[in-house]
Amino acid sequence: MTPALYLEDLSVGQRFASASLELDADSIREFAARYDPQPFHLDDEAARSTLFGGLAASGWHTASLTMRLLVDSDFKPVGGMVGAGIDELRWPRPTRPGDRLSVEIEVLEVTPSRSKPDRGMVRVQITTSNQARETVQSCIARIVIGRRPV
Amino acid sequence: MTPALYLEDLSVGQRFASASLELDADSIREFAARYDPQPFHLDDEAARSTLFGGLAASGWHTASLTMRLLVDSDFKPVGGMVGAGIDELRWPRPTRPGDRLSVEIEVLEVTPSRSKPDRGMVRVQITTSNQARETVQSCIARIVIGRRPV
Repeated sequence: MTPALYLEDLSVGQRFASASLELDADSIREFAARYDPQPFHLDDEAARSTLFGGLAASGWHTASLTMRLLVDSDFKPVGGMVGAGIDELRWPRPTRPGDRLSVEIEVLEVTPSRSKPDRGMVRVQITTSNQARETVQSCIARIVIGRRPV
Repeated sequence: MTPALYLEDLSVGQRFASASLELDADSIREFAARYDPQPFHLDDEAARSTLFGGLAASGWHTASLTMRLLVDSDFKPVGGMVGAGIDELRWPRPTRPGDRLSVEIEVLEVTPSRSKPDRGMVRVQITTSNQARETVQSCIARIVIGRRPV
């Protein structure tokens, strides 16, 4: 068990890495059928004549898999990972069937709350890469985190 | 069939609305087990002692359901809805079991591409509300959209 992290355990520039997971065409289509039923996420043939040029995962699927990799990583804020908000979310290239994704987290800012002495906020850069180390998603998130009790 | 929208069909201030969908505790837990397995998204009892005070959907689940409502709405950019990026994503209050969600889209900016004469970008505010008309998600997205051929 990785010990939970308090605000005091984090500093700017600190990095955490996740394990990796592979996704296949079936899981891309299954997610899309439920949440993003557009031809380029459902059917390789139909996707060829689109901007994507072939079957590609929904950006929300890539985001959800990124969350799963984060939850299973060593970046474990005390009380859980609760997003106060996302400041930026980009998908510079598509996630494809057979891609193996992994996530890196870098701490950008650590800010104690001015009004609530028991917590603070950490701003992190979350980068999701494929097996070729190409970025498929880039995200800046703000996460609520508890302070270590004195 | 709603006709597909070209850049020329959109103007600042234009609004589109979606249908609605209800989510239940099982679907909250099912999504969470796969993509965001944290106690407050998996178990009502465990969630009571957390920041959420009871079972709440993963923010990524709310985001994915929002995408589904958008795809099924009358906001149909020609060639499909392809996000160039999200500039802001907030979850001001949790999505709960039994909530009925609906989405409103408002056009914020319409910008022809300077380098690619066949397309442009539309910046939209996407607001997801529950049955009490409380905002559960607020999102600013940039969407690639084709220009009407001359």
